[in-house]
This record gives sequence, structure tokens and C-alpha cells, in this order.
Amino acid sequence: MFGCASAAIFMQFEARGVSFSVNFCSHCGSAELCWTVPPGDNRPRHVCSACKTVFYANPKIVAGCIPQWNDTVLLCKRAIEPRHGYWTLPAGFMEKAETTIEAAVRETLEEANARVEVVDLYTVFNIPHTSQVYMMFRAKLTDLDFSPGAESLECGLYREDQIPWGELAFPTILHTLKFYFEDRKRGDFPLRSGDIVGDRNRAIFALRRRAVIP
Amino acid sequence: MFGCASAAIFMQFEARGVSFSVNFCSHCGSAELCWTVPPGDNRPRHVCSACKTVFYANPKIVAGCIPQWNDTVLLCKRAIEPRHGYWTLPAGFMEKAETTIEAAVRETLEEANARVEVVDLYTVFNIPHTSQVYMMFRAKLTDLDFSPGAESLECGLYREDQIPWGELAFPTILHTLKFYFEDRKRGDFPLRSGDIVGDRNRAIFALRRRAVIP
Repeated sequence: MFGCASAAIFMQFEARGVSFSVNFCSHCGSAELCWTVPPGDNRPRHVCSACKTVFYANPKIVAGCIPQWNDTVLLCKRAIEPRHGYWTLPAGFMEKAETTIEAAVRETLEEANARVEVVDLYTVFNIPHTSQVYMMFRAKLTDLDFSPGAESLECGLYREDQIPWGELAFPTILHTLKFYFEDRKRGDFPLRSGDIVGDRNRAIFALRRRAVIP
Repeated sequence: MFGCASAAIFMQFEARGVSFSVNFCSHCGSAELCWTVPPGDNRPRHVCSACKTVFYANPKIVAGCIPQWNDTVLLCKRAIEPRHGYWTLPAGFMEKAETTIEAAVRETLEEANARVEVVDLYTVFNIPHTSQVYMMFRAKLTDLDFSPGAESLECGLYREDQIPWGELAFPTILHTLKFYFEDRKRGDFPLRSGDIVGDRNRAIFALRRRAVIP
């Protein structure tokens, strides 16, 4: 038997930027949810006191593309929160039963109605404070027949000197584009990986943050 | 308003190999769960008919290491299901608030009480039928003071010709080790990525499976 820190724990879950409180066990319907270390585990989880179901929460993958056309890349202006009105590369949450490339291609189609041929994986950025891992792929636009999807206000092709550097939606997008244009000058695109550390307003890029091992 | 395909939908969720049915909304406690396309979305989700909360499910990252010592790698014999008694590289589900490297290092410590220095990301394998993405890192053991953790029966160092090739736990581990020993002969370790397609008994490695875009 494991103890319960509090009879009524209101857990905040976030999905697609919308957070909601978790008040009931989704298996048996009990309101007796605990935040406790389950038997045989080494860290606290949400556990139902009534039926003992353990609820695991894990990081999510955000997959996207750097859709290239000559010396430009395709950017989208966000029509949704978070960061409505700011610019991004097409990217979004990977869905079940997909591969990372399929997710990146699908997001590019959904957000910009654009078709791409993926070249290779280019960036892997961890964002531990939001429990996300960004995986961005270099890709070539197969044609110029693109247009804003439901989640975009507009989209267009931007050279390095035309990128709205001060109006990018997320630090991951900023650092992906910075690496991309740097590497393009050299004609070599090694895998770029790193950690985005800090909160949304003061995010710092680090090749590897100081490891936090419990 | 969105329709409900069935008044009583029993959803199977799997966490840590344990599956349980989801019968109640974890937000409001209602049993009126639907499998339906939420407004503004393009694919079916689990949605509560009473409070309209949408429940998203996404792939999970499995992070691990290829812990190297001279011409050997550290393998663990699994003490847990699935694949109890079969051999694996230390790897497991990434936790929230971690980076992928931290997850890989933690799993190596938990499963083999082994300390490593991570070299770089080496494999990214998608397993769409289990909605997992494996990310395995090359790493160097810092000492030989390792021992089986709670989830391992034993662990030890294996040269290529000593690897129990027929008793490996997962196709991802098999293909990671095959690539690793191939690449070590050439002294060059490019990022290896691909898809594991099929079920657990007949898994095929493909550089990229035929894209399944709806």
C-alpha cells in the first residue's frame, strides 16, 4: 500500500496549450487520486487509491520541416495560440502511429498546404521545462503551390535577410534557422542538437545543460 | 456540438506495458466518453461529451545508451516484462522535465548501475505500430563498477562475437548493435535513422517506410 499526500489533488495537464485539471481516475472514476511513488518505481506518479492504476506522463515530440526553395525557406504566421501572429517553421505534435518524418511532412501540409521531400534530420532540441523534444527536418519544397492552412494567417518564402528575426514564435525556431543559415554558407549540415533552458521569455540555448540527475 | 459514435467506449491505454481501459473523463468524472473529431481538428480523439475536454495521446520517446568499453558494449538481461530474460542495451521511457541525454544516462544508471559519458546521438528509430521513437546515444563507460539494477537479472560486457544475437529483446536493439559494430570497423558513426515496421515477431527495418499520409 502506498500513502496519499493529499485527498484532493488537482493536477494540471496541458494538451495543445490548453490546460485542465485532472480530478478523477479515468479507469474507475474515483476521485481518490494521489501523487505518490508507486511500488517498484522511483519517482512520484499520479496513482488512483481505489484501483491502483498508475498514470504516466511523458514528453512529447514536436516534428517539423525547414522547407527550402533556392535561398529561401517557407515560414508560417501563426493563427493560433500560443504565439498568435508570430512566425514559425511548419511543425507540430507528432501523432500516434506516425514516424517523425511523416509527422513533419503532415504538419507542413496542414500549416502551409505545402508538399516537401525530406532530406534529413537536422535539429534535435530538448525543452525540459515544457517536456518537449523538437525534431526538425531539412526538406525541399516540391512546388510553389502553397497557401496558409487553418492554423496559419499567412505563409511565404524568406531569404536569410528577410526573416522576421524579432517576431519568431519559439526559441527552437530561432535557433534552427540560425544554425541553418550558418551551415548553408559552409554547405554542410551536421545534426544540431542542444537544450533550450529557461522559461519562455528568457530561453537560453546550450549544447548540453548541466545534467540534473536525482 | 460533435456526435458520439458510441455511448460506452472502452479505450485501451498502454503505459509501461500495462494496458487499462479508460472509462471516465479524468476532468469531470463523466462516463460519456466519445471517439470523435473535435471541432477544428482533423482526426478523432477521445472527447468528453459532458465537459468537452479533449484527450490527446502522443508517441513516447525511449532513450538509452550504447555504453562502450574498449571493444565491448554493456548489455543487460531484462528482469521485467516485456521480454523478460532477453538482452537489451540500457534504455527506457524518457520522463518529463528531462533532456534525451539525461534520460539515457539515468536509464543506464538504473538498469546497470553504470556511469557513462555520452558521446553523441547515434540512432533515431521510429516504431509507428507501438508509437515509440527510440533515441540511442553512443557513450563511454567511465569505470567498470557496474551491476544489475532492479530491472535487470545480470549485465556484462560483450564483444561483437559474444553478443547473444538470437536473444536480444527488441528489433531496435538488434539494429542499433548491427549498425554500431559495422560503423566501428570504419571508425565513423553517422546518425542512423529508420523505421521498424511490422509487429513484434516480424519486424522489418526500413530506412523510411512508405509514408502513410491520410
